Amino acid sequence: MKLYETLAADIASQIAQGVIREGEKIPSVRQTSQHHNLSVSTVIRAFLLLESQGLIESRPQSGYFVRRKPAVQATATASEPPAPAQMARGETLDTSEFVLTTLRSINQGSVPLGSPYPDPAAFPWVKLNQYANSLARRVGQMGMTADLPPGNPELIRQIARRHLENGLAVDAGEIIVTTGATEAINLCLQAVAAPGSAIAVESPTYYALIQAIERMGMRVVEITTDPALGIDLQALERAIVEQGVVACMVMPNFQNPLGYQMSDERKRAMVEMLARHDVPVIENDVYHELYYGDVHPSSLKNYDTRGLVLHCNSFSKTLSPANRIGWTLPGRYKAQVEKLKFLNTLNTPALPQLAIAEYLKNDGYDYHLRKVRKAYAQQASIMAAAVRRFFPDGTSVSTPAGGYLLWVTLPDSVRALELYARAQERGISIGAGNIFATGDAFQHCIRLNYSYPWTPEVEAAVRTLGLLAGELLDHDTL
Amino acid sequence: MKLYETLAADIASQIAQGVIREGEKIPSVRQTSQHHNLSVSTVIRAFLLLESQGLIESRPQSGYFVRRKPAVQATATASEPPAPAQMARGETLDTSEFVLTTLRSINQGSVPLGSPYPDPAAFPWVKLNQYANSLARRVGQMGMTADLPPGNPELIRQIARRHLENGLAVDAGEIIVTTGATEAINLCLQAVAAPGSAIAVESPTYYALIQAIERMGMRVVEITTDPALGIDLQALERAIVEQGVVACMVMPNFQNPLGYQMSDERKRAMVEMLARHDVPVIENDVYHELYYGDVHPSSLKNYDTRGLVLHCNSFSKTLSPANRIGWTLPGRYKAQVEKLKFLNTLNTPALPQLAIAEYLKNDGYDYHLRKVRKAYAQQASIMAAAVRRFFPDGTSVSTPAGGYLLWVTLPDSVRALELYARAQERGISIGAGNIFATGDAFQHCIRLNYSYPWTPEVEAAVRTLGLLAGELLDHDTL
Repeated sequence: MKLYETLAADIASQIAQGVIREGEKIPSVRQTSQHHNLSVSTVIRAFLLLESQGLIESRPQSGYFVRRKPAVQATATASEPPAPAQMARGETLDTSEFVLTTLRSINQGSVPLGSPYPDPAAFPWVKLNQYANSLARRVGQMGMTADLPPGNPELIRQIARRHLENGLAVDAGEIIVTTGATEAINLCLQAVAAPGSAIAVESPTYYALIQAIERMGMRVVEITTDPALGIDLQALERAIVEQGVVACMVMPNFQNPLGYQMSDERKRAMVEMLARHDVPVIENDVYHELYYGDVHPSSLKNYDTRGLVLHCNSFSKTLSPANRIGWTLPGRYKAQVEKLKFLNTLNTPALPQLAIAEYLKNDGYDYHLRKVRKAYAQQASIMAAAVRRFFPDGTSVSTPAGGYLLWVTLPDSVRALELYARAQERGISIGAGNIFATGDAFQHCIRLNYSYPWTPEVEAAVRTLGLLAGELLDHDTL
Repeated sequence: MKLYETLAADIASQIAQGVIREGEKIPSVRQTSQHHNLSVSTVIRAFLLLESQGLIESRPQSGYFVRRKPAVQATATASEPPAPAQMARGETLDTSEFVLTTLRSINQGSVPLGSPYPDPAAFPWVKLNQYANSLARRVGQMGMTADLPPGNPELIRQIARRHLENGLAVDAGEIIVTTGATEAINLCLQAVAAPGSAIAVESPTYYALIQAIERMGMRVVEITTDPALGIDLQALERAIVEQGVVACMVMPNFQNPLGYQMSDERKRAMVEMLARHDVPVIENDVYHELYYGDVHPSSLKNYDTRGLVLHCNSFSKTLSPANRIGWTLPGRYKAQVEKLKFLNTLNTPALPQLAIAEYLKNDGYDYHLRKVRKAYAQQASIMAAAVRRFFPDGTSVSTPAGGYLLWVTLPDSVRALELYARAQERGISIGAGNIFATGDAFQHCIRLNYSYPWTPEVEAAVRTLGLLAGELLDHDTL
């Protein structure tokens, strides 16, 4: 038996004997390390093992606690029909696993209201494929070194030009091409913080940000976020001062899942406040081009004078997720991020970079964007109206200023995971609110994708969801 | 000032005052953490800061030591011409930075003897581009979800079939497609070990393995490696027992840089020994298809009965590095690696996956491989003979059993970094031995790429290298 297994067995036995009781905090990693004279990594492995065994659970900003036994849970929910095993209410959800399950369920014949991707039918496939096609014929042999980090020079030029057109004068030398915004976010996070660091996010937030933080062994600090104004700047400042937050990750434009756009004033105020504390911010701006208003929004990067904004972006929401082309403008962290990109995936495939560069070089992006913006804006209203009509009283919906995601807040007693499971049975996918936070705060919320044309099938799906939500509501209030 | 900066300043002041002296070990991360009542991550950040300031250096398996002042160095090397700043002898080399510099120097008109990639002219570009071309026309819109981890099902089928043809019956359900072997190695490492863990590698080893380990905050443990037989299994077992090594990373076939092939007996013995200790091994097998013998070699994976071998592979050395398609068979770690792939880059671009699947489905891979194997085997002999002829007495060369990399051991006094710098001035790139280990053990070795056809230009480059090596030798023995 390895050291960590021995330690885990010791703790498990203490729990079994009631030395540490249900709901009680167990000694910290550091205390345990000192007390048992074991390395920190051994203790962490032991805790992870205990967690995977369902004996303890981590709570954000608090440490590890002994899990309450399922029996207690069963009493409280005895009148409910059993939920699918991995989604039972109150159990710790393996969010990454659950997100992957949700994504896989899309395109398996279900109405994809739970999809985070836009309707692929709206992408300019014909043009993109034409470019890939003619490039594949023309380029012949592709060297390896032209596409080393920071990335293909032609694509970088086109990205810089696009930023300029949108009012952000960037130094092309700051741009690093990545495998989608996902890689950009991971690299930026690793560049600005170390394991153990506290990272602030909006609440609710895009689940991939939570996953990125937890994967690096960092700590998620969730900041109150207004559904219309965005992250609470005073709460954020307090978290910096009192909880030692060393970096934050936000989506100031058309946040996933809430859909708001931070005002220019608030963006500026946020950048200035963070600069006073010398705290970097990772800006996830992948919906930037999908605004419904007359003018494109500003980014935090527009207000950055200190190189503390790490701007992350991608073409996955506007041109094609299949190309997996993202980029970052990492400010003063350029050197570290470029090195991490090199270490993480060496470089980004050549052909997808070249195809997108070619697309951007030619006209058509603006025309394409105008078309999808108009469609998304219309579908946002239709979907919101349908939810108001079909869902139980007490349901409220967001008012997205861009993007293609609607946030639906159900009456408190409705459990999104339960709704998710029942909707799945009827061939409808939804985004369960649980994945957008570490705790239970949004377990009565769901996220719906309205990028698909409003067909009778979609309308029927929304109606079914409303009925299911009603059933769940009745159940709980009986 | 942040906590870690304060701590770093304290230690710097102790060094300045001579409390801790040159060459002395400084207290460990754990001791410092306990003594100053600071978190481990704060201490690590402080140490990294001191290291980047050149005040301390880490030594494998030993900890951090106060760096000897450059003045001492200067006396010893006073008669030498100054080397380029970032490569001065004795200075800590930022290996990732230096590797990236080396890679970038390739294709900038230099003779690419330092390239880790095969000659791109040998790849089947015409066919690959034809497939990409016809796919781009045919597939139309590409969904996102078909290519979610584990990857494109057709490509996975083709990879499984290829393994079977090579004598390894794999479960297609174990395969995960990655962005090159680089991503596969990173994900596997994170799946089997935690920050602080000790990871064993061959010495010398492929630099990317050292970088992956260090990037994760893990500890590199370098194991004596025989240039013909491979890693010393007794030394490896001792490191497991005595140094708490929790995983190892090796290249059993045509190791980069030494070129040896481990025998079947040694591969089996290694897998069995590791199984006794329940220690997983990450097998980097990217040169597998480039054997010179009559039969393809076995992999460690062939001998694995416990799911402890995480096999990593790629098409970058055989079909095209530009596609960035790799894969892994992570054994019992499948679930973790798949989740990490999802978190790291979400998925791998669709078109490169489809193009390679299409290429594999049709005939031609074996024909292509027979051609390059024959060429590489011939060029290995020619390059080795040229090195023996042109290089100073006391130089020895490896006898690669596959791949396209030659390892040249120069007389002790020749510094590879010095040779690298002088060769660069003459338009020749080489791989400096320093990047293949954490210490100085191979600073008199270089790695040469012989995948390019043997032209008068290449011969002249090898002659020039030999002359330069001779000059450096004279210099030191004066």
